[in-house]
Amino acid sequence: MFSKELKEECGVFGVWGVPHAAEVTYYGLHALQHRGQEGCGIVSVNDNGELHRVKGLGLVTEVFNSENLGSLHGDMAIGHVRYSTHGGGGIENVQPFLFKHNTGDFALVHNGNVVNSAQLRKYLEDRGSLFQSTSDSEILAHLIKKEPVERNSPRIYPIMEALNMIEGAFAFLVMTNHRIYAMRDKYGLRPLSIGRIGDGYVLSSETCAFSVVGAEFVRDVEPGEVITIDHHGIRSRKYSDYQRHAMCAMEYIYFSRPDSDIEGRNVHSFRKESGKILYRESHVDADIVVGVPDSSLSAASGYAEASGLPSEMGLIKNRYIGRTFIQPSQEMRDKG
Amino acid sequence: MFSKELKEECGVFGVWGVPHAAEVTYYGLHALQHRGQEGCGIVSVNDNGELHRVKGLGLVTEVFNSENLGSLHGDMAIGHVRYSTHGGGGIENVQPFLFKHNTGDFALVHNGNVVNSAQLRKYLEDRGSLFQSTSDSEILAHLIKKEPVERNSPRIYPIMEALNMIEGAFAFLVMTNHRIYAMRDKYGLRPLSIGRIGDGYVLSSETCAFSVVGAEFVRDVEPGEVITIDHHGIRSRKYSDYQRHAMCAMEYIYFSRPDSDIEGRNVHSFRKESGKILYRESHVDADIVVGVPDSSLSAASGYAEASGLPSEMGLIKNRYIGRTFIQPSQEMRDKG
Amino acid sequence: MFSKELKEECGVFGVWGVPHAAEVTYYGLHALQHRGQEGCGIVSVNDNGELHRVKGLGLVTEVFNSENLGSLHGDMAIGHVRYSTHGGGGIENVQPFLFKHNTGDFALVHNGNVVNSAQLRKYLEDRGSLFQSTSDSEILAHLIKKEPVERNSPRIYPIMEALNMIEGAFAFLVMTNHRIYAMRDKYGLRPLSIGRIGDGYVLSSETCAFSVVGAEFVRDVEPGEVITIDHHGIRSRKYSDYQRHAMCAMEYIYFSRPDSDIEGRNVHSFRKESGKILYRESHVDADIVVGVPDSSLSAASGYAEASGLPSEMGLIKNRYIGRTFIQPSQEMRDKG
Amino acid sequence: MFSKELKEECGVFGVWGVPHAAEVTYYGLHALQHRGQEGCGIVSVNDNGELHRVKGLGLVTEVFNSENLGSLHGDMAIGHVRYSTHGGGGIENVQPFLFKHNTGDFALVHNGNVVNSAQLRKYLEDRGSLFQSTSDSEILAHLIKKEPVERNSPRIYPIMEALNMIEGAFAFLVMTNHRIYAMRDKYGLRPLSIGRIGDGYVLSSETCAFSVVGAEFVRDVEPGEVITIDHHGIRSRKYSDYQRHAMCAMEYIYFSRPDSDIEGRNVHSFRKESGKILYRESHVDADIVVGVPDSSLSAASGYAEASGLPSEMGLIKNRYIGRTFIQPSQEMRDKG
Repeated sequence: MFSKELKEECGVFGVWGVPHAAEVTYYGLHALQHRGQEGCGIVSVNDNGELHRVKGLGLVTEVFNSENLGSLHGDMAIGHVRYSTHGGGGIENVQPFLFKHNTGDFALVHNGNVVNSAQLRKYLEDRGSLFQSTSDSEILAHLIKKEPVERNSPRIYPIMEALNMIEGAFAFLVMTNHRIYAMRDKYGLRPLSIGRIGDGYVLSSETCAFSVVGAEFVRDVEPGEVITIDHHGIRSRKYSDYQRHAMCAMEYIYFSRPDSDIEGRNVHSFRKESGKILYRESHVDADIVVGVPDSSLSAASGYAEASGLPSEMGLIKNRYIGRTFIQPSQEMRDKG
Repeated sequence: MFSKELKEECGVFGVWGVPHAAEVTYYGLHALQHRGQEGCGIVSVNDNGELHRVKGLGLVTEVFNSENLGSLHGDMAIGHVRYSTHGGGGIENVQPFLFKHNTGDFALVHNGNVVNSAQLRKYLEDRGSLFQSTSDSEILAHLIKKEPVERNSPRIYPIMEALNMIEGAFAFLVMTNHRIYAMRDKYGLRPLSIGRIGDGYVLSSETCAFSVVGAEFVRDVEPGEVITIDHHGIRSRKYSDYQRHAMCAMEYIYFSRPDSDIEGRNVHSFRKESGKILYRESHVDADIVVGVPDSSLSAASGYAEASGLPSEMGLIKNRYIGRTFIQPSQEMRDKG
Repeated sequence: MFSKELKEECGVFGVWGVPHAAEVTYYGLHALQHRGQEGCGIVSVNDNGELHRVKGLGLVTEVFNSENLGSLHGDMAIGHVRYSTHGGGGIENVQPFLFKHNTGDFALVHNGNVVNSAQLRKYLEDRGSLFQSTSDSEILAHLIKKEPVERNSPRIYPIMEALNMIEGAFAFLVMTNHRIYAMRDKYGLRPLSIGRIGDGYVLSSETCAFSVVGAEFVRDVEPGEVITIDHHGIRSRKYSDYQRHAMCAMEYIYFSRPDSDIEGRNVHSFRKESGKILYRESHVDADIVVGVPDSSLSAASGYAEASGLPSEMGLIKNRYIGRTFIQPSQEMRDKG
Repeated sequence: MFSKELKEECGVFGVWGVPHAAEVTYYGLHALQHRGQEGCGIVSVNDNGELHRVKGLGLVTEVFNSENLGSLHGDMAIGHVRYSTHGGGGIENVQPFLFKHNTGDFALVHNGNVVNSAQLRKYLEDRGSLFQSTSDSEILAHLIKKEPVERNSPRIYPIMEALNMIEGAFAFLVMTNHRIYAMRDKYGLRPLSIGRIGDGYVLSSETCAFSVVGAEFVRDVEPGEVITIDHHGIRSRKYSDYQRHAMCAMEYIYFSRPDSDIEGRNVHSFRKESGKILYRESHVDADIVVGVPDSSLSAASGYAEASGLPSEMGLIKNRYIGRTFIQPSQEMRDKG
């Protein structure tokens, strides 16, 4: 269960109505890189309403270069950074997912996990759906398209129906050729915030990406809410009557960057406060406080402040550890 | 019409029951490289029954290397070389297509074109199918899975039904985790031949790939036939009562390699004979016969032989023209 | 001796006074690709008189792309394609060689072999020269710089002295920041021709590259001649009194492309004539003439014409064989 | 002056007598990555006494992969990480430098700068030396080889003479096919330490790399000392009578990693102590102490400890900033 939860660290970013949207998304994903290093991708909508995608295994700076980023035109885009999972995945599971459809192509990114994925997948496949990946995230797209709808019926209705079928923790972005939908699960387990650049909007898993792209924080997407962004501006709908604020504790403790605000609380302050509480609850006999880089440094400083003990830098982390680190041979391991 | 037809040059290759099947497929695809240079890919089935894929844009020698080819284990594989189309495609359209399904994953490759693709696609999408590409080739997979079948019903029946819904020219290979299906359209417009290596089998768009991998020619797949290869050996079924031999003339004239035999006729001999007939039908006043490399060299030699005129090498083709040739700037073009 | 000779197939190309010189060189090298597939490189001189280089292992289309070719500015450039040698080399031996010097940086390319290289190298190293490669070609550069010359003395004198120390077959291009020197050995063993584009010049191992870049043939560099090209135009000097025309027979038989003219003779015509002579000297009892692609096709057609026997295409060469072909495993070899 | 000094941050690492020496060097360079991110390289000596090199632009994890690292055999190796300079360099300046010579090939790496490089370079070039790079570091190699020595005279003498001609800050490693020489300038401006693994030795710019490869600290190379490591073990010579300990202050303040010991002092402790002194010398009226990541965090904690002020994490550094970051367009810059 816990390992499942941990696998669901990922980052999503979206841009509506901002020139060079793919480039803005590139910087946004780079600020979210700590949420996933296995792979990443961006889909943008060009002036002809066509969706184009670049994705790959590796860091944002490894997958994108001036040439392929320059091929993603337009002022709408969504992107994703994927967490490194053991054995799973490969390029097929790297998002955004892109679907071709006679009613309009669309793209999708997801942070979270679907608890009833096996059941939904079987339900869909028994009715003829074919999946291109092993990822839970693809399920929403198939659910949206499953029930034949009248041609002129707004797409928001099948989306809301689909969201009510999915149990789990999620933040989704769905992009058509002129609109972005943004939604969070009804428990509010995964974060998703709205920012503004001029007359356009950005969406991000964490607020730390806003300052990087020059965006101003507007508000969080609410639990159980679907946001629609298009030339009418932002519209909001609740797809579920049940709504709670139960942000996953791992976001505060481990996933998020200290300079992000999650549901109005700064992550660093939260961690520091935790350190103070830890001291009050269980003070041990010690001479010194040493934080384990990077996520527990804030808590260590809180503990030190509350206890009056000196906080010392006892562990140094190599800043250049990356995905492609070559595994040591047995001789090296024995040596080390 | 003609340009459509020309786009449908592609090559398929399959291996059943031969060690290092992906490597054998690599050599097979290399021998079929003249049928498509835009992209290529291979899916193999490893000992655990899992399907793994490597695909990319570029020539066989560009997409594959020792490392990624070495990651494709097992004694079953299918592969594809894709023709270069103008503006279309991208990596999404590069085959094999790979589908994840609770009843067993499967892969598919296709050479040909589906005449009623727009209708079939709309039919499928209206019933909830989501396509991952703009390629016609994906349609067969969705058709096979569309109708819910009883669990223990053999997969061959939905395949035969699906084939009867598709109008067009095609050679398909479908691979599950223990079986390969090979099928040709009922007009016999696209070639597909069966070869044997030891106790195993190979399938190829052209026979010129057989000698490269040490395979012995067995026979052609017949128009309207579905071949099933598994541990029972080869079984044959006719999915249509209508069967004709109407091989696309472009195969003889342009697509195929001169050392291939298509439906029992050697391509070089066919082209040479055409040259002789051309002379008899329309002899012009000439001093010399010059073939345009590469496909008309055989015809030119036939024309020369029939006419008694000398055949001369008047045009030389750079042997190193490849996909990644940098486009000349306007200055260069004006100069050239 | 013969294997040594064969290793010395390479191609050189130079451009003086033509806009986008690196791009022109790229097309020139592509036309000379048959002379060497192991590696290639280009050095150009930008408007500030700086020499920049791109080089790598692989074909011209593999080493160069829009980005790195676009980084080579200016209207002067030299380039090289290197023949694939067994075991030797690596990137250090890929040309052009580039030397940094307080009297002006310079670059050098070479086709040929230096017979007295071991002696010259020892002579130079004993006097403090340090080589960056194992290639004979680097020797000329060290010889030119060995003897301290008066500052204002023209560079042509040490070049001429150095050429007189080198025994062997060669065509050299040396480029400074405003001038190109072109030279052939006194026996005329390696080809080198001059072409013209507008007010600028090109130099090429073979004339087949001229039409590709829109150049007009001017004349061959003569055996024992040094050509200087700069804003004064072309100047000629003889560095040796001994001059012969003894073009290496391998150029006609094997190295060169059939559509090149070498010392005024077309290569295809030469090969065809050889085939006729072969028939006259040694007619064997045969039904058919089959050329081995690619270099003996011309000779086969000559033999057929002289003998009256039919010329037949009995062997087909895969047009996509390239450098990076993965070596078959033993199982594959046994099979094939 | 200062910018010159800053450019001279680089890291060197060497291994003698340890199996898989190139792999050990890879881990060593990775631990020194903070000293240079522009490029890196390794030369190893295989069992036949041949020197092979892999180098490239980028981080250690970008330049090396299992394949190219696996090609570097043997139990001796030296490596280098190069600092990112503005506009300078390119691949030619990436070390190790490798020289081919009839008396034995050799390789060289350098951390530091040569103050009298212009004079030495002119002296050498006037006597026929040809440089392959614009780097000062190449000068030592040419100096060593400049004066013709008797064949059987030990190489240590020309090395000691050469070191006396160079003015500046340096740590050099020179590797022949059976020996490594390690040397520091007589002022001791650049650090270089000796470690031991079993019967073998390692050399590193900083001690933080020792624990990573399982080496035990032995001692520093002394100012003005040349260390020779071969099958006789370690031998020491002083090449200069003048010797000082004047370690560059930037090593303590900025270049080195906090967990390294430089000349017996831990870098973190040194920085922290500096923070305390800073408080004592100049206490300002403040509520909080905020360190600028990464190098001033230690000093900030010292200042906080001495002042009793709270130390707060006010600035977060993106851990994924790397070399290949795409430069923002003007629109993005205006936005940010």
